[in-house]
Amino acid sequence: MKDIPGAVILSVGTELTEGVIQDSHVRFLAAELHALGFAVQRGMQLPDDAAAFRAELARAADEADLVVVTGGLGPTTDDLTREVAAGLAGVPLEFHQEAWDRILARFAGRAVPESNRKQATAPAGFALLPNANGTAPGFSGRIGRALVVALPGPPAELRPMFTDLVVPMLRGRFALGDAPQLLRGTAFMTPESALEEALRKCRREGVAWGTRVEEDRIAFSLRGGAAAEREIFFRSLVSALGPVRVCREEIRPARLLIDALAASGLVLVTAESCTGGLVGRYLTDVPGCSRWYWGGVISYADAAKERLLGVPGRVLEQHGAVSAETVSAMARGALAVSGAGLSLAVSGIAGPDGGTADRPVGTVWIATALAGAPPAAFACRFSGGRDAVRRKAAVAGLLAAAAAAAGRPFLDTPVAW
Amino acid sequence: MKDIPGAVILSVGTELTEGVIQDSHVRFLAAELHALGFAVQRGMQLPDDAAAFRAELARAADEADLVVVTGGLGPTTDDLTREVAAGLAGVPLEFHQEAWDRILARFAGRAVPESNRKQATAPAGFALLPNANGTAPGFSGRIGRALVVALPGPPAELRPMFTDLVVPMLRGRFALGDAPQLLRGTAFMTPESALEEALRKCRREGVAWGTRVEEDRIAFSLRGGAAAEREIFFRSLVSALGPVRVCREEIRPARLLIDALAASGLVLVTAESCTGGLVGRYLTDVPGCSRWYWGGVISYADAAKERLLGVPGRVLEQHGAVSAETVSAMARGALAVSGAGLSLAVSGIAGPDGGTADRPVGTVWIATALAGAPPAAFACRFSGGRDAVRRKAAVAGLLAAAAAAAGRPFLDTPVAW
Repeated sequence: MKDIPGAVILSVGTELTEGVIQDSHVRFLAAELHALGFAVQRGMQLPDDAAAFRAELARAADEADLVVVTGGLGPTTDDLTREVAAGLAGVPLEFHQEAWDRILARFAGRAVPESNRKQATAPAGFALLPNANGTAPGFSGRIGRALVVALPGPPAELRPMFTDLVVPMLRGRFALGDAPQLLRGTAFMTPESALEEALRKCRREGVAWGTRVEEDRIAFSLRGGAAAEREIFFRSLVSALGPVRVCREEIRPARLLIDALAASGLVLVTAESCTGGLVGRYLTDVPGCSRWYWGGVISYADAAKERLLGVPGRVLEQHGAVSAETVSAMARGALAVSGAGLSLAVSGIAGPDGGTADRPVGTVWIATALAGAPPAAFACRFSGGRDAVRRKAAVAGLLAAAAAAAGRPFLDTPVAW
Repeated sequence: MKDIPGAVILSVGTELTEGVIQDSHVRFLAAELHALGFAVQRGMQLPDDAAAFRAELARAADEADLVVVTGGLGPTTDDLTREVAAGLAGVPLEFHQEAWDRILARFAGRAVPESNRKQATAPAGFALLPNANGTAPGFSGRIGRALVVALPGPPAELRPMFTDLVVPMLRGRFALGDAPQLLRGTAFMTPESALEEALRKCRREGVAWGTRVEEDRIAFSLRGGAAAEREIFFRSLVSALGPVRVCREEIRPARLLIDALAASGLVLVTAESCTGGLVGRYLTDVPGCSRWYWGGVISYADAAKERLLGVPGRVLEQHGAVSAETVSAMARGALAVSGAGLSLAVSGIAGPDGGTADRPVGTVWIATALAGAPPAAFACRFSGGRDAVRRKAAVAGLLAAAAAAAGRPFLDTPVAW
């Protein structure tokens, strides 16, 4: 096995360490470098302070194979990257006429401030990286054991320079090998700790795993080892958590539902109470959903359930808004009002108020109905605050509707999460 | 002059160094610590790697007065913060019964995975920071010369814990001087660069500023200087950007609308097309909204606009779904179907497809209607991808409805953002 080259990313600017702006370079470069086959050892935000910058660049050049520095290439006295890099490399700054000509061309005849001359310099012996989208060229060269690449701070300049010039250079200089083999999957309606326990229980020789918690799912990957081992690992995970809670590839619940609708040719209508539009929002996050999502009703008030969905007043009175009877009537009413083939209805108590002893905060009912068939209702108990309960209710609703569209069973009640 | 205490921020998680997620903690904490009077020496993203984490924490504890560690407090084997901190402090992990009781209470009677027990431990002698919004408590204690504070990774848990528990602790432990006096405000529908330009133009002697970009607003603060100077600064900002785009205090657009509804006694109904439920979702994020939000219709398909809102088919044919005529008919239809006092309708082209030469992606129409009065329609042109257009449309809709509820003018068309 080849050694994986290590990389450090340094993002320079006092506006980063004073929290004035959000650094987005570490994330962009970390994703790119990881995909190329580098192990990113650390990302860092540093103030425009020559001593601190010099110390961190020296340490990085000593510990990593690649150091990417962003920012500090502007024309002002705060911009220290050229001077610090030249100092550590033990070389003077060198003036590049062709870089200066490019800067003059960008100013198109207007007066060029003298301070911009500095932008046509780089440590002697370093290669210039022309900037197609701004005045400051980047540069690259060796300091200590590392290749150091300096890029301008504005994302619109940095990103194309990295993609167009730096990536080909890195492929030429490093033995990057193939990316590790992996199997990607998604877990739904599962607390992080329960997924971790299942992963540990199902683990296979030589296969590592990673997880990433998102608002509506946990993405996971099984990496390394033999393909057959990854496959057995994945299948045991499906057995452990159930096929409703695990699927292959990384996929959002709304996308899963839209795919199931497209496969079955069904159009969906929604009726939301406690989720207040969140189910519709998730569905319409998916571009092209309009073919399969008709729309729906946000029946937040009881009057809205009666007037928009025809839920009988006596059902609301006898059983309450959060009940199998009401949510089933909502699902039937949504089908009737739309003429759609499948409906999804959600009603629950998101809190912080409105809970009772037998229906505490977190109690949610979900119903799905196919045209011409009686609705199926599912009782749920979700933990957490108002946001968590609403999010969990929306995700469970999307998955229940996807199961209904595919003609597969959903969960046995009660659904706890 | 007192010495300024130095701080280092360590954000831990392999998903950060693989570029899978964007670190937002360094920026949040850097802004808060800077405002408190700390000099932030560096922010850092580290992988879940015990040796690297240990080395960086040891170095930070040696070089800084305060080290804030975020993440690594989950229940999984990846979560290393407790073990690494205890190792460096030279103490064992200690089990806290009261923390365990809080975790059990959050699970509300359901089985708690054994792996969660770890979350009730902290380095012996360290103080626990109770987590009001999740299972993992934070902790704080001394390592080397530094006070080390460990906080959970989810922003919804980290931010209140920092503000409510850590800030008072830091004020007690460090000679920070008086908190700078500040004036908080919110900017809506304004690009970050435009706000920055306005702030620079309106600046007053001795008053510094900070901004924080959120999904639906930019929060800003004017700090230091005389109260009268901050007040003049704020008022010039209102003049520069307009009263619809700037308000005092930090407030979400949905809250602003709910407050305006409560003040006027009006109940709201919504009719959403391109936002697909996002307006309803923002409104129902606000606890207690049910008194002022009746519900609404997600009329994503044209058939839904006709059947649920009574938009005449010929209006859709003649003017299209994204037009003043259709969005006004939606607003009228929503009033009629609900009996509410105020309606908000949104219809637009969120993309990526569906744009035309005269109605490109980002074209959105918004209408508000008070019962008994003709609707007011506003043309908008929003930049960005599908998510950005939908978000901007929802925020502009909430603000237009808030203006209508308060009887104040909204923007002159077209609304560009």
